Amino acid sequence: MTSSAAGTNLSALFEPRSVALIGASADPQSISARPLRLMLQHGFAGRLYPVNPKYTALQGLRVYPSIGAVPQPVDLALVVVPAPGVPGVLEECAAAGVRCAVVITSGFAESGPAGRELQQRVADVVTRTGLRVCGPNSEGLFNPVAGVCATFSPAVDPEHGFVPFPDPAGPIAIVSQSGGLAFALLNHAQDRGLGVGAVVSTGNEVDLGWADYVEYQLDQPGTRVVLGFVEALRQSGRLVELARKAARLRKPILVAKIGRSDAGRRAAASHTASLVGTDAAYSGAFRQLGIVRVDDVDEMLDLAAYFSLGRLPAGRRVAVLTASGGAGAWLADLCATRGLTLPEPGATEQAEIRAFIPAYGSVRNPVDITAQAVLGGGFERALGLLAHSAAFDTVVAVGTLVREERFFQTFAELQQTLEGATAAVVYYSYTRASPAVISALAGLGIPCFSTPGRTARALSAAAEYAEFLQRADQVACFGTGIHAWPEPAAALSEAGARAYVAALGIPSPQDCLAGSADDAVACFGALGGGPVALKVQSPDLAHKSDVGGVRLDLRAADAVRAAFVEIVAATRAARPDAAIEGVLVQRMAPPGIEAFVAARREPVLGVLVVVGMGGLDVEALGDVAMRLAPVSLAEAHAMLDELRGSAVLHGTRGRSPADVEALAEAVVRISDMAAALPPNIAGVEINPLLVLPAGQGVLMLDVAIELKGTAT
Amino acid sequence: MTSSAAGTNLSALFEPRSVALIGASADPQSISARPLRLMLQHGFAGRLYPVNPKYTALQGLRVYPSIGAVPQPVDLALVVVPAPGVPGVLEECAAAGVRCAVVITSGFAESGPAGRELQQRVADVVTRTGLRVCGPNSEGLFNPVAGVCATFSPAVDPEHGFVPFPDPAGPIAIVSQSGGLAFALLNHAQDRGLGVGAVVSTGNEVDLGWADYVEYQLDQPGTRVVLGFVEALRQSGRLVELARKAARLRKPILVAKIGRSDAGRRAAASHTASLVGTDAAYSGAFRQLGIVRVDDVDEMLDLAAYFSLGRLPAGRRVAVLTASGGAGAWLADLCATRGLTLPEPGATEQAEIRAFIPAYGSVRNPVDITAQAVLGGGFERALGLLAHSAAFDTVVAVGTLVREERFFQTFAELQQTLEGATAAVVYYSYTRASPAVISALAGLGIPCFSTPGRTARALSAAAEYAEFLQRADQVACFGTGIHAWPEPAAALSEAGARAYVAALGIPSPQDCLAGSADDAVACFGALGGGPVALKVQSPDLAHKSDVGGVRLDLRAADAVRAAFVEIVAATRAARPDAAIEGVLVQRMAPPGIEAFVAARREPVLGVLVVVGMGGLDVEALGDVAMRLAPVSLAEAHAMLDELRGSAVLHGTRGRSPADVEALAEAVVRISDMAAALPPNIAGVEINPLLVLPAGQGVLMLDVAIELKGTAT
Repeated sequence: MTSSAAGTNLSALFEPRSVALIGASADPQSISARPLRLMLQHGFAGRLYPVNPKYTALQGLRVYPSIGAVPQPVDLALVVVPAPGVPGVLEECAAAGVRCAVVITSGFAESGPAGRELQQRVADVVTRTGLRVCGPNSEGLFNPVAGVCATFSPAVDPEHGFVPFPDPAGPIAIVSQSGGLAFALLNHAQDRGLGVGAVVSTGNEVDLGWADYVEYQLDQPGTRVVLGFVEALRQSGRLVELARKAARLRKPILVAKIGRSDAGRRAAASHTASLVGTDAAYSGAFRQLGIVRVDDVDEMLDLAAYFSLGRLPAGRRVAVLTASGGAGAWLADLCATRGLTLPEPGATEQAEIRAFIPAYGSVRNPVDITAQAVLGGGFERALGLLAHSAAFDTVVAVGTLVREERFFQTFAELQQTLEGATAAVVYYSYTRASPAVISALAGLGIPCFSTPGRTARALSAAAEYAEFLQRADQVACFGTGIHAWPEPAAALSEAGARAYVAALGIPSPQDCLAGSADDAVACFGALGGGPVALKVQSPDLAHKSDVGGVRLDLRAADAVRAAFVEIVAATRAARPDAAIEGVLVQRMAPPGIEAFVAARREPVLGVLVVVGMGGLDVEALGDVAMRLAPVSLAEAHAMLDELRGSAVLHGTRGRSPADVEALAEAVVRISDMAAALPPNIAGVEINPLLVLPAGQGVLMLDVAIELKGTAT
Repeated sequence: MTSSAAGTNLSALFEPRSVALIGASADPQSISARPLRLMLQHGFAGRLYPVNPKYTALQGLRVYPSIGAVPQPVDLALVVVPAPGVPGVLEECAAAGVRCAVVITSGFAESGPAGRELQQRVADVVTRTGLRVCGPNSEGLFNPVAGVCATFSPAVDPEHGFVPFPDPAGPIAIVSQSGGLAFALLNHAQDRGLGVGAVVSTGNEVDLGWADYVEYQLDQPGTRVVLGFVEALRQSGRLVELARKAARLRKPILVAKIGRSDAGRRAAASHTASLVGTDAAYSGAFRQLGIVRVDDVDEMLDLAAYFSLGRLPAGRRVAVLTASGGAGAWLADLCATRGLTLPEPGATEQAEIRAFIPAYGSVRNPVDITAQAVLGGGFERALGLLAHSAAFDTVVAVGTLVREERFFQTFAELQQTLEGATAAVVYYSYTRASPAVISALAGLGIPCFSTPGRTARALSAAAEYAEFLQRADQVACFGTGIHAWPEPAAALSEAGARAYVAALGIPSPQDCLAGSADDAVACFGALGGGPVALKVQSPDLAHKSDVGGVRLDLRAADAVRAAFVEIVAATRAARPDAAIEGVLVQRMAPPGIEAFVAARREPVLGVLVVVGMGGLDVEALGDVAMRLAPVSLAEAHAMLDELRGSAVLHGTRGRSPADVEALAEAVVRISDMAAALPPNIAGVEINPLLVLPAGQGVLMLDVAIELKGTAT
């Protein structure tokens, strides 16, 4: 695609005043007949120009032999001619002043060398003429408000059961790298009464890419949430800018991205012929940027429902109001496993609710008013009390909404009781809620879910997004202030790497480089004679301990002397090729908790900052947090909160809490360096970084810098 | 509940020939009027006896003043009288020869001290008379085949939209500790066309408990799967026996159990006034017993659909056949993250499929035949080839089943092509599948799902259940053969604990107990003078290193002598009260990977065997596997596979693989000891258990035995 795509005005694509259908067919069974029929059935109000030299009329419209023969300006050309004809047709379109084209035809880069060559010819037309192209190999696009149905998808075909929405201006936009899934998402959204304002299948993205469409959709006033299906982000450089716009507009982007597994990455890579990148890096970057990653269709549509209707909560405090003990307890359980909290209502609210419920009800959380109190209007009263309470950010009303009649009897009361409510309100119906009830609740800005797990997931996503927006306004602080780091001339030993990163201002244990056994003993004395570690120093050894180059906890001069000799001998024996700079004598660190922080290059996304707890092989456990560099202090804390292993930092099993603040600061500083990492550094790894008890800071126990092209 | 509940014949409850409705009311708005109307509307064919002294006739039936006045034998009494009257009514029922009663009335143990007393009176009636009671505080039960609708639930009320199934003999039984959820699950099942043969709300379980109902339902020939919602298992002793029956009958039990979070455990405990137990222990026990744990309603019904319709796969190998690259890749990705494998088809199959698909299709996995090949009947051909291939255990057909007409055009071909197929076949429709298509596929034993995540979850559950059945046939091997372990007379030091567990036959590093510094030096010599560790031995010290009682890697006699003196001094200073047996001189172990294995008592379930990898605080990470003791070797391997941290055992980052076999054997032996753990031992912890390279076994580096009532 072209690099000038940013900020493109795609109105000619999504809101064309005139559409040419190039290759339109008379055979009703043919895919190339369908778009014309669909445009007519969807009531497109602009001008329609079928183009096909074989016909003079189709569906009552005059057919033109070529695009050049169309007498008036054309905004959008829909191209369904066979692949070999496509470059020529696009050339003609450009010559005729057409602004955009959607190429439905397949047989381009996805189909082998000949197709790739054909696609290159399309790219050349784009570059030469400035014609903007969606596709090729796109399933097309759909804009129900404008009646633009530039696709052959059966999902929008009235002959296959498509029923238009009462209000076509839906708040959801769908931008998908899979055509099948683009329209399948529309189909699922319709099935649950969610309004979709735009669908586009991006195809092979010869010109316009996923990020272009997302940006355009974010800019539309009616859009409230964008759903994206992504196989490979070809415009990853646009991600940060796109996400910032989305955050500024408070319009979340929900993304399903393939590549969770090796098998998925292979499938996506072969399918899209693109680098798919490191999945954990995407997850980290998405979290950082407020892009909500989802793993299934239901999850995507549940969150789309929440974000297009519901109110963002101020925090994680959830009240569960129920008349079924079991359903309420299950929901509370699943909310808590997702990191939401369930505090008790205030004493006043408890007393007020207690007054109108039976003894076997509960005024704690879940607030279980029992079926008996529901009959007396207790549900609405309790809901009003909780939704106006300062103790909660969200109130979930748990009930059975299968009986419309009952619901509408008390609807006016519900509406009244929620006026001026301070908490977000959500419904969980444990029976399948009736569509009329769901729609009435939607009118009040209340999302309604039908299973406890899906309710809890939506609540946690909303709380996390609200937290992201709070965090996003913060800027990096405690940074190094250094915006250029020098290129190391050659590989560095640990001591060299320590010198390199000294400007980070993160302390190390006191040390001293010894060139001889005598030196080592002198260092030992100079360091106070306490316990020390000895570590061989060589730019050629990534893993010193593997060659017997490390000895710990030496407490006497003799032991230090002996260790020096042994270390040098062992290193020489194991790696005769390695240049030895000397042996570092380092004070043993006081007790603390080991973490690691690293700057690493990722092939698609750029330089990341990575943090994990030390000890076990946490990378094998997948318990590391990654972000694009740099990060703010709030983001660094979010990274630590994300680690399962970070529980140990807060003091468990009698340990006192560790200096989490200093660890977070170190992450910020290292991220700052990462953001300005010189091109010949592949990564910087501080491992272990020892986290001392609260108030005592951190210590870099080891530092390694990997240059590009040097395997370790 | 009574202890004699096992194996109870509940036919009088679920298939009564005559039902008395005690407390039936004439007020149509009242809950107590509803069961009679529902029994009539559901076409109950047996005799119905309303009982209420206030009336002489209701709904055209004669009303009796008391149960004693009913002239013929009554199988089931449905009791809706106010709570204080319930014990007396049950007494009368017993006197009148009624066999079972369902008590709908609330206000018993769930409502405070007076209710608890009332419930005790009900329990007394049960004990004295042998009347079997469901409830109190039950929402009742439903058996559509027999027309038994002994409930007031609107979910089965034709006046609230309930439409009977074409075939009432559904394969799914629902046994729920929440009445609301019992009937909500029915409602969800109906909504997706799944047949339910029985629903019961267990209420307060004064007599009959969850396990009784599950067992009865397993015994019904029409049942293929049992769904359970559990807040607190009051009959946990029945779990093993129940699960064995289910496995023998190949009828899975799917359980949603509250208690994933602290909040959930608190809610369930206060709600049910029962011990809820350790959640991870339940998860482990459920895995071991083939009870499938689910976390949401959709998941439960998806798996119910699979297990009631689908065929169990022989293994984890899945082929994805698709015409949409995106949908196929997403499904493959999600399958792989769930541990399923996606091998390529055999060369023959690849060549055969290649012959009828376009160049831009793929014959690997996902097999993407493209939309073009679908039109030529390629989908059915490819499906037939893959489903008959020895390379796959399951084939997922990915398509859009929103268009019935198209589906039924090729239905006969589909049926034919799948005849004699060796693989299980599943459909994933990326648009919402039409109910008629779902039903036609069900007729072929093919489950159909509408999202990739839910499809992948169902496939993994089926593969795991099939693996469980294979494992379940194994018996414990390599056991100790010791069926009685002595009660320790007093607390044990490490050396004492080592002596106690010596009979396990798991090796330790060579060691020697030293009473003096000279002894220690002599031990050092006797152990070969290699590096040793010194560890203070005291029955009073659970954590030796916390008091300075451990020194590692000593390589010289002087160092050993000095360490002995220092250790004893440090221990005396830190814990003057601790009796010191001596100092253990132990050879330092060779390099290996640390794990831990423990036997632990769990308050509800019994004695567990627990395994985790060492190093980090894995319990904080939740990365431990637990099972009821004892376990078979296959089960021990399943435990290790379940640990995220066990990846390191298989050789990562240049490490050679560890002796997984020896670790699994150690788990079996320790589980064997756990199964016969004497009552005064609370737990046995072998931590670290060092796993040496493959073929070299394991070493117990430390052993601790905790007696009951001794805090550590």
